[in-house]
Amino acid sequence: MNPAALESFLTFLRFPSISTDPDRREDVLACATWLNTWLNENGLQSTLHPTAGHPIVLARNVHQPGRRTVLIYGHYDVQPVDPLDLWITPPFDPRIADGLVFARGAADNKGQIFSHLLGITETLKEFGDLPVNLLVLIEGEEEIGSIHLEEFLLAHRNDLACDVIAISDTGMIAPGVPTFTYGLRGIAALEVRVTGPATDLHSGIYGGAVANPATVLARLLASLHHPDGRVAVPGFYDEVIPLEPWEREAWARLPFGDAQILTATGSPAIAGEVGFTTTERLWGRPTAEVNGLSSGFQGVGTKTVLPSLAMAKLTFRLVPGQTPSVILEQVSAHLRSLCPPGVSLELLGGHSGEPYATDPHSSDGQAAQRALQEVFPDNDLAIIREGGSIPIVNTFKRILGADTLLLGLALPDSRMHAPNENFPLAHLDAGCRLNRALLVQLA
Amino acid sequence: MNPAALESFLTFLRFPSISTDPDRREDVLACATWLNTWLNENGLQSTLHPTAGHPIVLARNVHQPGRRTVLIYGHYDVQPVDPLDLWITPPFDPRIADGLVFARGAADNKGQIFSHLLGITETLKEFGDLPVNLLVLIEGEEEIGSIHLEEFLLAHRNDLACDVIAISDTGMIAPGVPTFTYGLRGIAALEVRVTGPATDLHSGIYGGAVANPATVLARLLASLHHPDGRVAVPGFYDEVIPLEPWEREAWARLPFGDAQILTATGSPAIAGEVGFTTTERLWGRPTAEVNGLSSGFQGVGTKTVLPSLAMAKLTFRLVPGQTPSVILEQVSAHLRSLCPPGVSLELLGGHSGEPYATDPHSSDGQAAQRALQEVFPDNDLAIIREGGSIPIVNTFKRILGADTLLLGLALPDSRMHAPNENFPLAHLDAGCRLNRALLVQLA
Repeated sequence: MNPAALESFLTFLRFPSISTDPDRREDVLACATWLNTWLNENGLQSTLHPTAGHPIVLARNVHQPGRRTVLIYGHYDVQPVDPLDLWITPPFDPRIADGLVFARGAADNKGQIFSHLLGITETLKEFGDLPVNLLVLIEGEEEIGSIHLEEFLLAHRNDLACDVIAISDTGMIAPGVPTFTYGLRGIAALEVRVTGPATDLHSGIYGGAVANPATVLARLLASLHHPDGRVAVPGFYDEVIPLEPWEREAWARLPFGDAQILTATGSPAIAGEVGFTTTERLWGRPTAEVNGLSSGFQGVGTKTVLPSLAMAKLTFRLVPGQTPSVILEQVSAHLRSLCPPGVSLELLGGHSGEPYATDPHSSDGQAAQRALQEVFPDNDLAIIREGGSIPIVNTFKRILGADTLLLGLALPDSRMHAPNENFPLAHLDAGCRLNRALLVQLA
Repeated sequence: MNPAALESFLTFLRFPSISTDPDRREDVLACATWLNTWLNENGLQSTLHPTAGHPIVLARNVHQPGRRTVLIYGHYDVQPVDPLDLWITPPFDPRIADGLVFARGAADNKGQIFSHLLGITETLKEFGDLPVNLLVLIEGEEEIGSIHLEEFLLAHRNDLACDVIAISDTGMIAPGVPTFTYGLRGIAALEVRVTGPATDLHSGIYGGAVANPATVLARLLASLHHPDGRVAVPGFYDEVIPLEPWEREAWARLPFGDAQILTATGSPAIAGEVGFTTTERLWGRPTAEVNGLSSGFQGVGTKTVLPSLAMAKLTFRLVPGQTPSVILEQVSAHLRSLCPPGVSLELLGGHSGEPYATDPHSSDGQAAQRALQEVFPDNDLAIIREGGSIPIVNTFKRILGADTLLLGLALPDSRMHAPNENFPLAHLDAGCRLNRALLVQLA
């Protein structure tokens, strides 16, 4: 690793660019300004674009007709650092130990995007040009839902026209295993609010006379699943595109499964929908999850209230074929049909995102896989989906019409969003080589 | 109303004797000291007994052989005042309006106990003696579970030997309706904690692979009831002593039922166990209530976690025949039998209290009812149970061997434990006359 490049990376990590924190607004701006300057000093033409929130950095090489255009996306903003006391060293004072860089944003996403930037600038230094017309879009609001990105894409859709998009913001299933992600689950959020009495009541004086909203909520939530783990909402699976035999076979061969999931989660046992393996359930099957519950007294000891309100936050992870609005309609109809008359039911739809899948056998997909295999030659390529949602992938597809290649460089224990986030220095180097190989392959 | 008596009552109300608040310790002591002095100045022999918590005031007349001994119990401590901003005038600056005294403690219990004290001192002034040997026990920890009362009763069980106990700390079912309460529900508390993954997980990355503790909790809570409102825990009703025909008939005739309960609770509809009227369910049938729920993300918006922990606080209200420890065993066995392997289940038994019922047709019960009817002659006597629990009634029975007569003077809208607590001045007067009639009847 070139010492100047490493020092630039550490400088990038030192900015506390926490996009959700209003007190860090100047730090976020300083990070974007530094990045913009660095890009201009290292051979790209970069511009800082203000938004109503945090600015977007957009860089390019000199485009030439007849070449393919590749957009590389990343983000310079980071998650909050709480709980701070669990960090071994301060989150914005990068520490290198055992070949890992520890810092907030090390993996998500500063390390992954910076490895691409190193690849690009090395190529430019070596050859004076890149094999493709390049666009690099690095935003500062990914951790708060990319709230101004769509507006920016719409306003600059001609400048941003491209053939394919590459993002390194996902993970590898195991160290050294090149991982190509071709699908993501979508999401639909629903808050369920069950109201009974006008205020919390004394559960002795009134218990037995009126419906308890917490009990009603529990019964409604219990109705979401069959005992065998299948979602029990009528119609929920109707539009699911079944997994193809090659997917099930490929996933069954991966060095990733129940053992790794039990270790990573600390759960006492694997659980879920009957009839599918755990990786199939994670990547290829929809879910209904409770994200939060709240009702009545939650402190220490006992307070004998019959609560006025009980609330649950739900999200449904969706797979290709499913439509968030349809799922929310089905779930709402199901819950309404089961709600007893002693309470009122309020259903608040939250954010949603379409599921995403590309064909991993497309020519760009194959090109990306060749680049991955070249950089990580010791293990077979893992061709997977992920269980999470990356809504911008759908936004890119909708506005720019381009598919996205997901080339994750984070490891399962990179602790993204958690204390002691880290990224292997070797992956900074690998990402640099991956970028160079990828642009050659995509060209 | 004698102006000096009223002024003494207002002085009593001005002490902010909030027993749960360590910052009010001196105020609680000042209240007890004032009360002790007032009793001594008004013809009783009163002593302030320190405890490890707040002191107990114990007063008596000169006992004479051959007379019955009556213990009157009350408490001088009050509930906290939050939310303070909902009070129209300050809670410890008593305000008289529309014949009501507004102050924290006005009904619970300063007004009710002070009306007895006024009756006692008036009788003493008029006749120089009472018709019975009297004990007046006024504690300062009722609102925090009477935590030192049992120890005090055990240490003074000989001094406190009595034939019957009278308490005015309950309510009348409607204004002007004399109400004799002969039964109370017991209680058994259980906290249910369901733990799945070691930490909150990303619900996209891991949703579908491991059990969601909030979903498991919901299914466990849903299993507590049949759809028709009956508790579904095996054995739960086995030892319930059925309501007698006279109770069901008497309660059906009361000017209290669904309409009053809907108004008081603000619930959209009556609900509960099939096969019983609402008053039967409130006073004579056991319940399983959720008092609180907590899990995962409860803030504004969406956070896509698969929670590590889901918690519910439960209380079971019990009726005569049921035993709290047996019920907790049954519920625990039921929940354990249904808990799936993907989570661990922790069950924490909380406070419990036996149900209570006396025979309203006993001679003391009849005496109390005659006294009530004499003071409130315009309406038929209501002979009821209450849905709440008053654990000290069982403690008295166990240690002193005496039954308790419950002669409530609060009204349904006295707002006990709530802002703008109030008590009718007319009930201060009525309670005074009730005490005089009661002691005569019990003699």
